Amino acid sequence: MSVTAAQGFEAAGVAVGLKSSGNPDVAVVVNRGPLKVGAAVFTTNRAKANPILWSEQVIRDGIVEAIVLNSGGANCFTGSFGFQTTHQTAEKAAALLGVGASDVLVCSTGLIGTGDEVFRGKVLAGTEQGIAELSSDGGQAASLAIMTTDSKPKRAVVRRDGWNIGGMAKGAGMLAPGLATMLVVITTDAVLTSEEADAHLRAATRVSFDRLDSDGCMSTNDQVTLMVSGASGVTPDPDGFRDALTEVCTDLARQLQGDAEGASHDITIEVVGAASEEDAVEVGRSVARNNLFKAAIFGNDPNWGRVLAAIGTTDAEFDPYDVDVFMNGVRVCSQGGPDASRDEVDLTPRATHLRIDLRVGRSHATILTNDLTHDYVHENSAYAT
Amino acid sequence: MSVTAAQGFEAAGVAVGLKSSGNPDVAVVVNRGPLKVGAAVFTTNRAKANPILWSEQVIRDGIVEAIVLNSGGANCFTGSFGFQTTHQTAEKAAALLGVGASDVLVCSTGLIGTGDEVFRGKVLAGTEQGIAELSSDGGQAASLAIMTTDSKPKRAVVRRDGWNIGGMAKGAGMLAPGLATMLVVITTDAVLTSEEADAHLRAATRVSFDRLDSDGCMSTNDQVTLMVSGASGVTPDPDGFRDALTEVCTDLARQLQGDAEGASHDITIEVVGAASEEDAVEVGRSVARNNLFKAAIFGNDPNWGRVLAAIGTTDAEFDPYDVDVFMNGVRVCSQGGPDASRDEVDLTPRATHLRIDLRVGRSHATILTNDLTHDYVHENSAYAT
Repeated sequence: MSVTAAQGFEAAGVAVGLKSSGNPDVAVVVNRGPLKVGAAVFTTNRAKANPILWSEQVIRDGIVEAIVLNSGGANCFTGSFGFQTTHQTAEKAAALLGVGASDVLVCSTGLIGTGDEVFRGKVLAGTEQGIAELSSDGGQAASLAIMTTDSKPKRAVVRRDGWNIGGMAKGAGMLAPGLATMLVVITTDAVLTSEEADAHLRAATRVSFDRLDSDGCMSTNDQVTLMVSGASGVTPDPDGFRDALTEVCTDLARQLQGDAEGASHDITIEVVGAASEEDAVEVGRSVARNNLFKAAIFGNDPNWGRVLAAIGTTDAEFDPYDVDVFMNGVRVCSQGGPDASRDEVDLTPRATHLRIDLRVGRSHATILTNDLTHDYVHENSAYAT
Repeated sequence: MSVTAAQGFEAAGVAVGLKSSGNPDVAVVVNRGPLKVGAAVFTTNRAKANPILWSEQVIRDGIVEAIVLNSGGANCFTGSFGFQTTHQTAEKAAALLGVGASDVLVCSTGLIGTGDEVFRGKVLAGTEQGIAELSSDGGQAASLAIMTTDSKPKRAVVRRDGWNIGGMAKGAGMLAPGLATMLVVITTDAVLTSEEADAHLRAATRVSFDRLDSDGCMSTNDQVTLMVSGASGVTPDPDGFRDALTEVCTDLARQLQGDAEGASHDITIEVVGAASEEDAVEVGRSVARNNLFKAAIFGNDPNWGRVLAAIGTTDAEFDPYDVDVFMNGVRVCSQGGPDASRDEVDLTPRATHLRIDLRVGRSHATILTNDLTHDYVHENSAYAT
C-alpha cells in the first residue's frame, strides 16, 4: 500500500525505458486533498541535483499537490538543460492535473551526469503515463518504480485511531551522507498545518534517516517528502503524530540499512554515557565511517582496537583510557584495555550490535551502518557499466 | 642504506619472534653524534599508543640518543602494563648504550591490544640483541624489521654537498589519518639545532606525509622522527636542507602509497584554482575519502559525478556548477557539466591523475590516495587472524 495507505492519495508506477532492464522507472503520487500540505528535507550536499534545486523552491510555501519521481538517471550536473527538464516535468504534471507547476515536486535517482534529450523525453512520457494510471491502490507500483540497486521495495504503514501514515523509500543511506540517493515519500490523512508538518518531519528524520550512515558518501539527490491530505478529518495529538511518523521513518531506515549495497552485516552502533547527544552521534558516526572497522566486521573479527582508534579522531568528551566496548553483548574492552577474549564474540549473525560506553555522562544515540564487503566494492566499481 | 646513509648513525634489525613469520621485528637506530638532536611529529589521534605517550615526553628537550622500533604488536590499549613495557624498553636501551632513558624514543606497530608479558619479553630481548648487532651499515636490516603488511621495505637517500639525509618508512597512510601505522625514521649528518630540526621536519611532513590519505583511517601509533648527528660538520643552507628533507619525505610517502594494502591504483589528486591552500587540501581529502569514487577507480570507471558529489560536502570556496574535472588528462567535466566522453579516459594504468580546477583562485595542493579494492577488504577483514 505504501503511500496510498493514507486516504486522499493516488499513485502510479510505470515503465518508460529509463532502466535498461525494462522495470518500472517513473512514479507519481498525487494529493487529492482536502489539504494540500507538504514538507520536505533535502541533502545538505552543496552539489545539488536539478530536482533538488527545483523542489527546494516548491516546498517554500508548504503546499504540494503532487510529486514525480524517476529512477534511471540523477539529472545532476546536467546543466541548464537538465534544470529545464525538471521544470518541464513539473509543468507537464501540473497541466494534466490542473494545478500549479510550483506545487509539484520532482525527484530523480541514478547515475550523475545522466539527463540528455532522450532522458527528458522518457521522463515526460512517464509523467503523462503515470498520471493516466493513477489509482488509490497505486502505492505498491510507485514503490517499485523508484528502485535502483535496491533488491526489494521499501514500504511502511502505521494506522492510528482515525488517521494513517504510509511511506515508501529507495536507496540505502541517509540525507547526508547517503550510500546511493535516498528518496522517501510519506503520506498522511491526518490534519496538519504546513508548519506542523515541517516540524514533525524534521524531528522524525533527525533520529531516523539522519542516523543511518551506510558508507559515509553524501548524495546529490536525497529528499524526504511528507504530503498531508487531511482526508481523515482528524487532528492528531502532536506527540502521538510525531511518534507515529518517527516509527514509519525508523522502519524505512531499517529497511534501507538491511538492503545496503553489498552488505553482509547490519551494524547498530549504540553510544551511551556521552556528555551530550551531539557527542554520541559524532562518536557513532566516526565508527560507522571507519573502513578498517567495517572490513573487520565483514571478516567476523571483533577488532575493538579499530573502534577506539576511530573514536579517538573525534572531539567528543571522553577519556580513551576509560571507555568500554561491547560486541554482541560481550565486553571486549573495559576502561581502554582488553577484557573478554575475542573468541567469546560471535559475529556470524547479520545483525551486529556494537555498544560504546564513554562513561562521562547520560546522553546516548544510535547510528546504523553496514560492513565493508567484497560485494560493496564490486557493485560500486561496476555501477556505471 | 636508509638511516645509515648519513654519517654518525648505527642501526640493526633483528628477529625475536614477535612476528609469527619469523621475519625481523625489532629495529634499533643509534645516533653516535657529535650532535644528539632529535625532532618528531606524532599521530593526532586522541587514542594514542603507549610508545606515543612515551615519545611525546622524550622529544620535548630536542635531544635523542636512540630509537627502538618493533613490529608485531602496537602496544596500544594495553593499560599501565603496556606503558611500563615501553618505559622498560627505553631503560634497557639506555643502560646498554650508556645514555639516559629519557633520550630514547620507542615506536610500536601491529595489532592494537597486543602488549602482554610475552610481548614485553620479546621486545626487551630484541632491544638487547639489536644493540649488540649495531653497525654503520645496519640501515637495510632496520628497514626490514619495521615492516608489517608492507610487501617491501621503503628507503630513501639524498646526498648534498657535504651532508646527507637517509630514511626508512613502513606502512601506508599519513600521520593523520593512516591506513596502517606509519613509522618513519630519518637521519642526517648535517649540523642543525633542535629548533631548526623541528621546524624543517614540520614543514616537510606538512606537504608529504600529511598529504597521503590512503583510507581515511587515523592510526594510534604514527610517528615520524628526524635524528641529527652533525657528523658532517657542515651547516646547510636552511632552504636547501628543507628542500632535501621534503624530497626524502615525498619519496618515502610515494613508496607508502605504492605499497598501500590491496591497492591497484595510485591516485594523485591535484586541486588547482582554489581560494587557499587549506581549501585545496580539504577538497582533495574529501575525494580521497570517498568510497564510491575509490571503488569506481578500481573498476576503471571515470565516474566524475562522484568527484563532484564528494567536493560538494566541503566548506571550500567554489561554485559546484563552475568546476572542471580532468581524469588522466581528459576533461570529463567542465563548468559542472559533462564534457569529453567517458570512453576517452584510460584508467588501466596504475598511476591515476585526477585534476580538479575550482576556478576561484590560484592556490593548489596535491593529495595522494589509492583505490578501494577487493584486496583491501580482504586484507583488512583478515588482519587479526
